[in-house]
Amino acid sequence: MNYEARREKLYSWMNEEGISLVVFADNEASRNPSVRYLCGHPNDALLVLSIDKKSLLIPWDNNMAALYAKADNIIPYTKFDLDQFAAVEAAAAYFKTPYGSKIEIPNSTSYPNFLKYVERLSGFDVLCRNDGAGSKVEQMRSIKDEIEIDIYRKLSVKTNEIIALLEEAVPAGTLKSEADVALFIEVECRKRGCDGVGFTTLAAGPERSFGIHCFPAWTSAAFGTRGLSILDFGLVYNGYTSDVTMTFANSPSKVQQKQLELVEDAAETVLSMLKKAFSPQNEAPMLLARDTARAVDSLFKKSGVFMPHGLGHGIGLEPHEEPFLRRAASNTRQLECGNIITVEPGLYDPVHGGCRLENDVLLSEQGAEVLTKSKIVRW
Amino acid sequence: MNYEARREKLYSWMNEEGISLVVFADNEASRNPSVRYLCGHPNDALLVLSIDKKSLLIPWDNNMAALYAKADNIIPYTKFDLDQFAAVEAAAAYFKTPYGSKIEIPNSTSYPNFLKYVERLSGFDVLCRNDGAGSKVEQMRSIKDEIEIDIYRKLSVKTNEIIALLEEAVPAGTLKSEADVALFIEVECRKRGCDGVGFTTLAAGPERSFGIHCFPAWTSAAFGTRGLSILDFGLVYNGYTSDVTMTFANSPSKVQQKQLELVEDAAETVLSMLKKAFSPQNEAPMLLARDTARAVDSLFKKSGVFMPHGLGHGIGLEPHEEPFLRRAASNTRQLECGNIITVEPGLYDPVHGGCRLENDVLLSEQGAEVLTKSKIVRW
Repeated sequence: MNYEARREKLYSWMNEEGISLVVFADNEASRNPSVRYLCGHPNDALLVLSIDKKSLLIPWDNNMAALYAKADNIIPYTKFDLDQFAAVEAAAAYFKTPYGSKIEIPNSTSYPNFLKYVERLSGFDVLCRNDGAGSKVEQMRSIKDEIEIDIYRKLSVKTNEIIALLEEAVPAGTLKSEADVALFIEVECRKRGCDGVGFTTLAAGPERSFGIHCFPAWTSAAFGTRGLSILDFGLVYNGYTSDVTMTFANSPSKVQQKQLELVEDAAETVLSMLKKAFSPQNEAPMLLARDTARAVDSLFKKSGVFMPHGLGHGIGLEPHEEPFLRRAASNTRQLECGNIITVEPGLYDPVHGGCRLENDVLLSEQGAEVLTKSKIVRW
Repeated sequence: MNYEARREKLYSWMNEEGISLVVFADNEASRNPSVRYLCGHPNDALLVLSIDKKSLLIPWDNNMAALYAKADNIIPYTKFDLDQFAAVEAAAAYFKTPYGSKIEIPNSTSYPNFLKYVERLSGFDVLCRNDGAGSKVEQMRSIKDEIEIDIYRKLSVKTNEIIALLEEAVPAGTLKSEADVALFIEVECRKRGCDGVGFTTLAAGPERSFGIHCFPAWTSAAFGTRGLSILDFGLVYNGYTSDVTMTFANSPSKVQQKQLELVEDAAETVLSMLKKAFSPQNEAPMLLARDTARAVDSLFKKSGVFMPHGLGHGIGLEPHEEPFLRRAASNTRQLECGNIITVEPGLYDPVHGGCRLENDVLLSEQGAEVLTKSKIVRW
């Protein structure tokens, strides 16, 4: 990965904004893979970037940093008793950041912790903003580069191989329970060189598929028996996550058939919109993310049904990241070349069960390309 | 679970503090099982408590709420387009909260979102504090009641059964890879009625045990081969998590043997401290959480080694919760009857590998009782 080039972009931005120091934090309470994106260190660390183009990593696990981190300097977090305020104060001293200059802390910083930072960094101008450095890197992360797109092509092949195996095995009755399918995915993804699953696999047999995200995630209950079963899973390869949902429909009733067709129609409608906007003939694609969700809402409304979640989201180092395909008026995000997004219409009925169909789509100058082959499997 | 009694305690506290409305939030970016603790709904919701002793749940998944939630009222989150600000404003209107009164929002609220709340709730006094309602419920959660202790006794039996199986299977070579042990735990815990694992199992063979938390969590690499292998896992039963770490030492070198003995000594030292402080003869146990960590630091210092993490933490609806056994001077927490904590000394060497020994301990009027039987397995 070209960590230096990524940091270089951020240094330019810091220069334009007149910010001396930017702090990124990944910890158990608030995961932020922007740390990994910018220096390769996987988790549990502070990353501090200075306007004089130097990076300082403050990792919890020093042995891990020695293996993974590509930063200019590394100081163990334990030196500060894992105290973020002490560590950032020390980083400002380390970089000789001039008093009065701007230091930007993570926008996830809680209000009480913001007050502590302000007290601790009393000689500085402390910034904490939703449209600051964190958002800048999230925007960078949402536009995948060549290396990342190559990872997604390989990851999609692995994901599709597992989809194909499931498409055979569930109707054949080889995988009989939610546990069977969840464990099958754990094993098969690692056989293919994946780090693991990107999030806890959601496997809901007909008794539990009414839930948007079933709870618990998977049990020993039957899967693929009469009715609708939902399987939502993602694989991680080189840190990047795929995210697909299959629905298995065993002898669906008329009501269920109608539900399945509506969801398939919704997926088709959105793919057509994406293909039209991102046609290779179209030099400047213009499509608001919310309009894709609203198209599905309109379609469902005609049948008197409603999708209780967003239509999709970007995928990358996080299973859910920018851009979000949400219907809200406040979502003014345009879809862009380089985005890799999920499209996942779904309908859930407490009596008839649920159905979701989710695939991953790459948007680029070459068009809108559906990378994964998830489907509704009927028998 | 006695959700009403728990809320009743909080209503009393609200009354004392003069707070009209308290908001708890659980979402993907910030998990907070206090929602579940107070009303049974497992996740993805706002819970609003009013000083007139009424609760309002605003869940993402309505079908799920119908099954799990024990709240006085339920309004779907989708009614507000999943907009937390709109939902809390509507809750204040619903409860007819008088203008000028105090509304407490989650202490995890980011500074930028705090500003939005203040704007949105402009007629109210918005509180966001580390020592407020969130902390009050975390304190309540750290003192387990009879029902919770009973769950932990059952959960410990299940955990110990799996420990015993692993103690046999790894030295025997029946489970050969990190994947083998991780999947074994997934299957065995569900056989015993568990919801699943409490966190991603960390299985590190001799090549990777140098990491405090190995990355990736588990791979197809060998486990239990010559050297030190670490296995950190927890099971979830009725929502509550156990947390244990075993170390497997195959033909350990002299340096490794010394490391193992030091870690065992550390565990023994802490258990003695706990047993002394919580002896049934001792009516008012007084032991600072940080002093347990500092005892281990002193012991390790004599051998010139250092533990790069805290000594332990409470367990419950979260795998890591109050009280934290951290060495920091700022940690002024006393250990108390009703706490269930982990004790997990560890040492990590980039050349010789790592070793950690973790067990769960119930502190009560009857003494300090080690619930789990994790150990360092040598052969």
